[in-house]
Amino acid sequence: MIKVGIVGGTGYTGVELLRILAVHPEVKVSCITSRSEAGMPVADMYPNLRGHYDLAFSEPDATVLKACDLVFFATPHGVAMRMVPELMAAGVRVVDLSADFRLKDLDVWASWYGMRHESAEWAAKAVYGLPEIARSVIRESQLVANPGCYPTAVQLGFLPLLEGGLVDPTRLIADAKSGASGAGRQGKIGMLHGEVGESFKAYGASGHRHLPEIRQGLAGAAGQDVGVTFVPHLVPMIRGIEATLYAELNNPTDFDRLQSLFEERFREEPFVDVMPFGSHPETRSVRGANQCRMALHRQEQSNVVIVSSVIDNLVKGAAGQAVQNMNIMFGLAETLGLEAPALLP
Amino acid sequence: MIKVGIVGGTGYTGVELLRILAVHPEVKVSCITSRSEAGMPVADMYPNLRGHYDLAFSEPDATVLKACDLVFFATPHGVAMRMVPELMAAGVRVVDLSADFRLKDLDVWASWYGMRHESAEWAAKAVYGLPEIARSVIRESQLVANPGCYPTAVQLGFLPLLEGGLVDPTRLIADAKSGASGAGRQGKIGMLHGEVGESFKAYGASGHRHLPEIRQGLAGAAGQDVGVTFVPHLVPMIRGIEATLYAELNNPTDFDRLQSLFEERFREEPFVDVMPFGSHPETRSVRGANQCRMALHRQEQSNVVIVSSVIDNLVKGAAGQAVQNMNIMFGLAETLGLEAPALLP
Amino acid sequence: MIKVGIVGGTGYTGVELLRILAVHPEVKVSCITSRSEAGMPVADMYPNLRGHYDLAFSEPDATVLKACDLVFFATPHGVAMRMVPELMAAGVRVVDLSADFRLKDLDVWASWYGMRHESAEWAAKAVYGLPEIARSVIRESQLVANPGCYPTAVQLGFLPLLEGGLVDPTRLIADAKSGASGAGRQGKIGMLHGEVGESFKAYGASGHRHLPEIRQGLAGAAGQDVGVTFVPHLVPMIRGIEATLYAELNNPTDFDRLQSLFEERFREEPFVDVMPFGSHPETRSVRGANQCRMALHRQEQSNVVIVSSVIDNLVKGAAGQAVQNMNIMFGLAETLGLEAPALLP
Amino acid sequence: MIKVGIVGGTGYTGVELLRILAVHPEVKVSCITSRSEAGMPVADMYPNLRGHYDLAFSEPDATVLKACDLVFFATPHGVAMRMVPELMAAGVRVVDLSADFRLKDLDVWASWYGMRHESAEWAAKAVYGLPEIARSVIRESQLVANPGCYPTAVQLGFLPLLEGGLVDPTRLIADAKSGASGAGRQGKIGMLHGEVGESFKAYGASGHRHLPEIRQGLAGAAGQDVGVTFVPHLVPMIRGIEATLYAELNNPTDFDRLQSLFEERFREEPFVDVMPFGSHPETRSVRGANQCRMALHRQEQSNVVIVSSVIDNLVKGAAGQAVQNMNIMFGLAETLGLEAPALLP
Repeated sequence: MIKVGIVGGTGYTGVELLRILAVHPEVKVSCITSRSEAGMPVADMYPNLRGHYDLAFSEPDATVLKACDLVFFATPHGVAMRMVPELMAAGVRVVDLSADFRLKDLDVWASWYGMRHESAEWAAKAVYGLPEIARSVIRESQLVANPGCYPTAVQLGFLPLLEGGLVDPTRLIADAKSGASGAGRQGKIGMLHGEVGESFKAYGASGHRHLPEIRQGLAGAAGQDVGVTFVPHLVPMIRGIEATLYAELNNPTDFDRLQSLFEERFREEPFVDVMPFGSHPETRSVRGANQCRMALHRQEQSNVVIVSSVIDNLVKGAAGQAVQNMNIMFGLAETLGLEAPALLP
Repeated sequence: MIKVGIVGGTGYTGVELLRILAVHPEVKVSCITSRSEAGMPVADMYPNLRGHYDLAFSEPDATVLKACDLVFFATPHGVAMRMVPELMAAGVRVVDLSADFRLKDLDVWASWYGMRHESAEWAAKAVYGLPEIARSVIRESQLVANPGCYPTAVQLGFLPLLEGGLVDPTRLIADAKSGASGAGRQGKIGMLHGEVGESFKAYGASGHRHLPEIRQGLAGAAGQDVGVTFVPHLVPMIRGIEATLYAELNNPTDFDRLQSLFEERFREEPFVDVMPFGSHPETRSVRGANQCRMALHRQEQSNVVIVSSVIDNLVKGAAGQAVQNMNIMFGLAETLGLEAPALLP
Repeated sequence: MIKVGIVGGTGYTGVELLRILAVHPEVKVSCITSRSEAGMPVADMYPNLRGHYDLAFSEPDATVLKACDLVFFATPHGVAMRMVPELMAAGVRVVDLSADFRLKDLDVWASWYGMRHESAEWAAKAVYGLPEIARSVIRESQLVANPGCYPTAVQLGFLPLLEGGLVDPTRLIADAKSGASGAGRQGKIGMLHGEVGESFKAYGASGHRHLPEIRQGLAGAAGQDVGVTFVPHLVPMIRGIEATLYAELNNPTDFDRLQSLFEERFREEPFVDVMPFGSHPETRSVRGANQCRMALHRQEQSNVVIVSSVIDNLVKGAAGQAVQNMNIMFGLAETLGLEAPALLP
Repeated sequence: MIKVGIVGGTGYTGVELLRILAVHPEVKVSCITSRSEAGMPVADMYPNLRGHYDLAFSEPDATVLKACDLVFFATPHGVAMRMVPELMAAGVRVVDLSADFRLKDLDVWASWYGMRHESAEWAAKAVYGLPEIARSVIRESQLVANPGCYPTAVQLGFLPLLEGGLVDPTRLIADAKSGASGAGRQGKIGMLHGEVGESFKAYGASGHRHLPEIRQGLAGAAGQDVGVTFVPHLVPMIRGIEATLYAELNNPTDFDRLQSLFEERFREEPFVDVMPFGSHPETRSVRGANQCRMALHRQEQSNVVIVSSVIDNLVKGAAGQAVQNMNIMFGLAETLGLEAPALLP
């Protein structure tokens, strides 16, 4: 059994980790920390966990965490970068669900997150944990930076196009939409049901923290800098991200081989599903499941490739991908504990 | 492995059976029938099942069904009563999720369902499959009538009060609320998103088909006829039932022992959770899970007991309870395949 | 033109007052106060008001308020009771949308609101502003206590039964359901979209502040003390209240005349609509409109009268009823500015 | 008073016309037709209209329609083109909310709508009723083709950019999102609450009927053919469209004057609101109102202009714009009957 600790477990990614790990056959959650809720049983805060956990939130305690095989960070940015070095020194492995170790350029990181990065060493060593591009290095890594939700949906959809050099990398557009759980579980007026329900809007259209992460990832796939416009939107639902991606095909005749290119690229991937050409993936088809589903489209008289890509922001966009990374790191079957179909309807 | 057939699999209870059975370690679904969709892969209709089933819907075929160990009926009323006798004769076991075998008084059945019952023999032999009252007879039964969604939530909540003779059985009120999936997956204008969304209403307030089923069940628990008023309501959500139950305590001093009475009654029940006195169960705490959670309330200067009881109408109110019944019938652990926590948020 | 001031305008009742008054032909809003948002244009906080108001929120200023003909309080409890005496002395008329002047028994008020009442004089003089029972005294009143949202829906539905002495007043049950805007516009975690969406629950089942207000109102109608159980629930929608009311008819033969009794009682009421017997009023049928719609039901073999009553909690349950009261107080047509149909779908 | 007839009034645009016209001071609705619901009072189908209309649906009757001053068609495509010529001959004015007279190229029309157009004469004479570009010709027109919902949101947002020649007209992208009422009020399984709720998806991504209408409109504004990619999406809400528009600025220095260009372009438009640069218009800010709100965005290091444009698909995207057109045609104040603020929250 892998002895797991969770730092910062009161948010939606925390409870989602607990939900997934509750039925993972090789994991024992030995501690879950929260400064604000220390002492409260997790099942009191999250009644879906009644009967599944006896655990209570505890103050973060380095000794306890260092006794874990793996620690997940489900914290706001700025926390993991301070605690990780000590855990690394103790030989603990870490999957960080926050943004602390995702960007390689720490000046860019500092400008988007409004603070200086405090662990340049581990920022350099951390592996960006998108298994579909980095499985083998994840396996050997002690520190995995779990990708952001939007970046997961966007990168997976663009990947075959950029790796194949089929599109103009300077003219990428990612119009992405997310359910409200992506904003976390904090008492913000703007996220009240009375504000979010029955309405739709763009947000962060002039610049969102996931933009540099997307840019870095796509540049890696393209082997060159990319020009990408990314606009997130808030959908009146709880879970799910859909990203509609637009790219210009360099050679319109390539349309004929796009579908097989995508199928080929992801044939061995347990958690990427390329649907038939012209399909419309629904976010509900991945609700609660560690899946990305995508489909390709073309409009008449156009050389614009359209990719629609969906994930559950809390699963493949956060806790599920983190468990997938853990499975890889510990040599388990990659799908272990992640087999259940999505909840539909 | 139990060889399972599903008759009438295109509706929401059908897909929910498939979702649950996809990860059940002792089941192999060998056929799923639909006259209207014969030939269509189930994963084309329900993309959450992509990668989980190769199966396509097929025309109902008695030979195939008779080769099953167990057949689930997820059909409109009137279908199972015609097909069951032949399956019984062939020694197949059946869990009927429709209403065909729930009522013992076939005149009452006929008046509510608008047709004559065609299998009085099996209506008499069928066991009403609420495990919390009938576990031992379910185990031996060849034909189990799976309870309706509202009747499950309502009966479980009233059970300890009536069994203990603590309340006036002639003055019971059950004010129940359900998500839209309870109405099934048919193209009715009244169930469009544009009609159901952002609105709330009672329906069937002058009489609903689940009323006689509730009456029969409560009478069984009380050991006498009961007077119960049951009003269902439509909630703008997909899954979930909440029933708020009102009963008059015969002896107000009994309030002191109600909580322990309820806890005692359900202590051994894996799928009934009595929450602390004064709690407010949320439907999301059981979304996707085979659970009933309930809590008790009392208002000052009042001898009215209030019970709030929640289930997922598609799980403990339908497919999950059906699998629970199957587990009991086949001597498996009752919780097998039903262990995953609810999806929250 | 009536010169109107609004105290505490940043909440949902505040913006709803502004929305309604924007097209009221006899009103000029001259100030709207908010300590926290002083200086912010109302249209910046509520973009639906762009182009309708130049006004900004201002610090509460007694001089400015005393220059108004009418002041609406849309404040938390405890504010109006402190400011009202000075306005009364200045001859200003007030409609208080908060709970400060609703209860006549100030010990009861203190026990539910957790503070001592500071204006016994005006609590005694205030008129409870349910026009359907108090129109003539409202007309002459300087201070109107605008009823709570639940109490409006519940009282209107029970009124004909209690006034006529047709039911047992000791056995009343009001099972009520509200959209999330009823909880106001504050950053509470429990009211996030991620918490409220796709879920349903009871709350305040052991006792809610509207219970004593309902009790007081029903006792007035019945001419004696009443026994009423009131359980509110939270619906995953923004606006709307539905109350399902249960009462025992003293004489079952009275069922035959109930419908005409209700129609007669409300025939002259512009904002109460008695629908045909057996109808199911939907909250969306009153969304944005100052209407209460209700319908009666009876179940076979039962002497329980069922009334389903719907309002928009922000309109007939708050701001619309306040404007109706203002119209009455100033001798205007009672429906002025309140004529538009509900927004459906 | 203008005597108005409505053909095909049972759908969402029909009821929305009735809602708006109920408080329009210069209109009398004299008939509303529906073959399927002839004889049913409109207030029975749409209870929000109880007390506002005595009217019942009637069979379409040419004599009655010819006695109207204006007829609105709220019909599926293919109906208006057959009935309009007779009304034109009788001197009746028509606003057609269907797609019959929107496209000038009837071959294109035939290929998208799957039938031959039957009134080439009136297709040629009809005026495309987007007041912001065609006010003066609408005033003189006998037949106005009311724009589609998506085309309204998309055209208004691109208009200043194309009219000014500031962007590359061959690389336009319109990623649009709509609530479920856009699909009309028909019993389609795909539009059930259980299918639409809590999910998000693209649809029609390979080609949607509004694409040629958008292309035609944008070409008119640009004075040349345009290349536009248009992808609609379905949002789990009832009303509202948001379109996020992407265009490449020819000269990046033009960014500095974009905001004033937009403000200038729409300064005199009563129903277009240019919000401050960097704002995020919400669909709820126009719910129920005949408004388009929009805002501009720029991301660092990018020459892509981003415009977010919102309307209520049933109002500025259908019935409200139709009434606006009627006001223009009859020389009334353009805002008459359309002054009420949006319903928020």
